[in-house]
Amino acid sequence: MYEGAVQDLIDELGRLPGVGPKSAQRIAFHILSADAEDVGRLAHALTEVKARVRFCEICGNVSEHAQCRICTDPRRNPAVLCVVEEAKDVVAIERTREFRGKYHVLGGAINPIDGVGPDDLRIRELMSRLADGAVEEVILATDPNIEGEATATYLARMLRGMDIPVSRLASGLPVGGDLEYADEVTLGRAFEGRRRIEA
Amino acid sequence: MYEGAVQDLIDELGRLPGVGPKSAQRIAFHILSADAEDVGRLAHALTEVKARVRFCEICGNVSEHAQCRICTDPRRNPAVLCVVEEAKDVVAIERTREFRGKYHVLGGAINPIDGVGPDDLRIRELMSRLADGAVEEVILATDPNIEGEATATYLARMLRGMDIPVSRLASGLPVGGDLEYADEVTLGRAFEGRRRIEA
Repeated sequence: MYEGAVQDLIDELGRLPGVGPKSAQRIAFHILSADAEDVGRLAHALTEVKARVRFCEICGNVSEHAQCRICTDPRRNPAVLCVVEEAKDVVAIERTREFRGKYHVLGGAINPIDGVGPDDLRIRELMSRLADGAVEEVILATDPNIEGEATATYLARMLRGMDIPVSRLASGLPVGGDLEYADEVTLGRAFEGRRRIEA
Repeated sequence: MYEGAVQDLIDELGRLPGVGPKSAQRIAFHILSADAEDVGRLAHALTEVKARVRFCEICGNVSEHAQCRICTDPRRNPAVLCVVEEAKDVVAIERTREFRGKYHVLGGAINPIDGVGPDDLRIRELMSRLADGAVEEVILATDPNIEGEATATYLARMLRGMDIPVSRLASGLPVGGDLEYADEVTLGRAFEGRRRIEA
């Protein structure tokens, strides 16, 4: 519909996740009238990320070096390992400032429908990290959905023989939420996991 | 939160219209795991559009040459001129295949709140295009909202002395829509503009 370069850009933008044809057009026109310098920065950021970012050889998190910032940080406790599905989850947990251990990124969750089995995840790497006995606790922080639960169950079973305490993040009511809007599974979990208040 | 290059990309993506922090993160992770070649194509499309695309010196539409495809097309009728706000509107009208005349892109609409007055639009250019008497009909196809209506009224008043028929696109019920969901202004316009059916 548009002349060459504009249509090319709309096509390329439309391939990004969550960007439909209307958004692609809106972004393309924004770019047409934006400062060339700003657009250059975006184009540069795109190529830089591909050139510089890789995955940490220890934990699988995104990193600009062979080993990521967390794996090489001497202040982080190597005895506690938190297992997550994606690098995004590391960022979410870091934001809480609650966790001072290290991570292991699986690269997804077991999902038979999408054809993702245990061998497609970084489970072998997890097992070899645990082999030397330095890790004293494993926290399974996979998503609280079917795939995440299945993955946690699978891992818990694999870790059973290793004599390492394994825990799972608590499920319950989201803080700041409304009890009446909670779905029944979450509310059920909140009952199950209720905690005594010390008066 | 993320290491340098990833965070840079998330920041740059987050500046695009309609891309919030969550979408920016999702797109950035998509790019991390995408083919380097695909990402290169997107980066290239961005810089190409800035390098090659400008605005047609006649009509103000986007173009890769000094004059756009429509202005230089001898099959288009130069006697009918359709005035629109944005280049996007040209594409929308072209899609209907109803219009075979030429365009004039104003570059926006009169909007006192945003500080856009008649002098900020390509109205002077419109007047000089009409000066030689070659245009025999002007269609005002600005948006059917307050700013578009104000712009159309302003232009109609300016064109009054020129003895050129001026029309405005019909307002009414959208085709395929439901009468009960039409807002009252649209439904009012649909009554006002009702057309006799030849039985």
